[in-house]
Amino acid sequence: MKRIAILGSTGSIGRSTLSVVESYPDRFQIATLAAGHNSDLAFEQAVRWRPRILSVAKEQDAAALRAKLRSAGLTDVEVLDGAAGTVRVATHPEVDFVVSAIVGVSGLEATYEAVRAGKTVGLANKECLVVAGELITAEARRQGKPLLPIDSEHNAVHQCLRGGRMAEVERVWLTASGGPFLNTPKSEFASITVQQALNHPTWKMGRRITIDSATLMNKGFEVIEACRLFDIPPDRVQVIVHPQSTIHSMVEFVDGSLLAQISVTDMRLPILYALTYPDRVPSDLRFSVRDLRHLDFSPPDMAKFPCLGLAYEAASIGGAKTIALNAADEVAVAAFLDEQIGFEDIPRVIEEVMAATPAGHLESIQKVLSLDREARLLASEFVQRSRHKGSPIRAILQ
Amino acid sequence: MKRIAILGSTGSIGRSTLSVVESYPDRFQIATLAAGHNSDLAFEQAVRWRPRILSVAKEQDAAALRAKLRSAGLTDVEVLDGAAGTVRVATHPEVDFVVSAIVGVSGLEATYEAVRAGKTVGLANKECLVVAGELITAEARRQGKPLLPIDSEHNAVHQCLRGGRMAEVERVWLTASGGPFLNTPKSEFASITVQQALNHPTWKMGRRITIDSATLMNKGFEVIEACRLFDIPPDRVQVIVHPQSTIHSMVEFVDGSLLAQISVTDMRLPILYALTYPDRVPSDLRFSVRDLRHLDFSPPDMAKFPCLGLAYEAASIGGAKTIALNAADEVAVAAFLDEQIGFEDIPRVIEEVMAATPAGHLESIQKVLSLDREARLLASEFVQRSRHKGSPIRAILQ
Repeated sequence: MKRIAILGSTGSIGRSTLSVVESYPDRFQIATLAAGHNSDLAFEQAVRWRPRILSVAKEQDAAALRAKLRSAGLTDVEVLDGAAGTVRVATHPEVDFVVSAIVGVSGLEATYEAVRAGKTVGLANKECLVVAGELITAEARRQGKPLLPIDSEHNAVHQCLRGGRMAEVERVWLTASGGPFLNTPKSEFASITVQQALNHPTWKMGRRITIDSATLMNKGFEVIEACRLFDIPPDRVQVIVHPQSTIHSMVEFVDGSLLAQISVTDMRLPILYALTYPDRVPSDLRFSVRDLRHLDFSPPDMAKFPCLGLAYEAASIGGAKTIALNAADEVAVAAFLDEQIGFEDIPRVIEEVMAATPAGHLESIQKVLSLDREARLLASEFVQRSRHKGSPIRAILQ
Repeated sequence: MKRIAILGSTGSIGRSTLSVVESYPDRFQIATLAAGHNSDLAFEQAVRWRPRILSVAKEQDAAALRAKLRSAGLTDVEVLDGAAGTVRVATHPEVDFVVSAIVGVSGLEATYEAVRAGKTVGLANKECLVVAGELITAEARRQGKPLLPIDSEHNAVHQCLRGGRMAEVERVWLTASGGPFLNTPKSEFASITVQQALNHPTWKMGRRITIDSATLMNKGFEVIEACRLFDIPPDRVQVIVHPQSTIHSMVEFVDGSLLAQISVTDMRLPILYALTYPDRVPSDLRFSVRDLRHLDFSPPDMAKFPCLGLAYEAASIGGAKTIALNAADEVAVAAFLDEQIGFEDIPRVIEEVMAATPAGHLESIQKVLSLDREARLLASEFVQRSRHKGSPIRAILQ
């Protein structure tokens, strides 16, 4: 019986994880849960799963939940809040496996503490590896525990890597759907609307990651994640556009063989894989090979999607540069969603913030969080100046 | 240093194996060679590789070679002939690894003896597994030695299987190019010429295997091979048509994940994989992922290609039925190549021979060879009766 903590239980990955746990009651049980701002769902989850600890974001939500759970007769659920509560959820002694699925840097500290506490961690949170990959992977190696990727691409790579030893890997090939603007001419990029950018062809996801998919920054983040997770340099992590997202990623070995992973586009599959690794257990998440017809591939257009190049640059330098990349992207995407800047301004803001951020080594999670705050302030400044002048940001930045 | 015996050194796989051995002089050396009727090439290979034993098919060729090698000053190469010579090549005490690449049942005995002698065997000969798979795999299990497949599909499966345990495999998916008649309407099958059937779209191969590819019997043999090699029932070995032959085969796991193997269509790659397993070594046999554009798939048309259904039937019953299938196919294909029977007569001859062959268990290689002779005689009779009457074989068989 594997005892599971979920960081981000009310989010999309959190709910999918609970669905997987529900399907395998003999294998998994919920030990602790960390939710966010959705108190109603957090209450339902506490009633259904009876965690040792339930943590939520805000103190007043915790107080209300405490009362509500007491009224419902659930006196054995300890209700906590804030960053400290999430860390308690992640490091509880009865937890074997931590699913890290809080979006953004707010999941970082708890994830790092889970690794430090010797837990096996399944990573659905991108930021952990993008901004603090060096720290987290070093700690996991020290603990001798695997970091299991829970996103379709890195999970696919993890599966393909079983076909050989790490020293026998030539390249990792991440597939990219190409996003909604794969076939849009670059000349039309300046006039891309929020509505158009939110219309992702393959995956239904949150708003930021959908925009990140449209700019290919999401793929750029995945390049950085792959570098950190599999300890390989950026020039050996390549991107290939594959609109059907049927092949989730590939590994090329030194002998010239490639292994590719194929499955349905359902996050429960990588979650199940991570939770059961090194075993595989039967599921009803079947991919119908009989219905396979056409798979298309093309190289990514680096000129149309400058975010991908910026990510490679950040991956090469590492440290503070990846923090700047992520923070600037989050701020720029929020400004785009808020119609403060245009689609083509997103990479411009990021490029400037990266240029203004000195390269620096990361010695602690606190340093990561402080660099992250600085980069956000810088990005907000660029965005504000652009917005107040009401002119294209390029004119300001130049 | 791995010491290698090649059974069938002058054939296509044999020559590719020597090319691989030549590329890795620090890893491999040639211990013994068994050639066929090409004495000139056998002589060249003996001079180049200085094997302990060189065996050829015919006694007079052996005598001539012995004299020629003595004149050339090569007195340390023992020249043998016939089946006994091939067995000596396969079982020589200085041999670690045997590449079994003699086409047809004549490679059977030596391959079986190699397994019995505790050698690791790389199998490029289809017949070994099709007609005597039960015997050979049982012996390999007894010896605790792997049987490593050297054909692109089973080699691909072998690689994909590394992604899980055998008990976690749901299905094996063999890809089929579909042959030259993939898009030919069934109504035109009766008038297919030898010339048309020899025109394979993807692989350059021998004449029989090219016709077997056109009828999909080759894929049927591969289904049987997969059943024997990986010890799974025929209903869990499926065929999917994939004209580009880029994905060489796939394994579907119980959790719903599939792994697929991709590489160039060059037999040196599966040879290298088998010779170096469980390691992978760098090669220049690169597949260019950047140039990947379209991959197409479709289910096989069982009505157009009845040979595939016959192979599934033989695979299910096993024993004498797979011997009948292989022997009848070899005779029927030879008759087709000789323009004695039509393209659609090939499955008819096989079906009749299979029907006339009682199911029987295989207790020894001698039994296999005797059943093989009987099935060939039976098949020849059907072909002869068809030829003499000068009428479609269907009329005779009914």
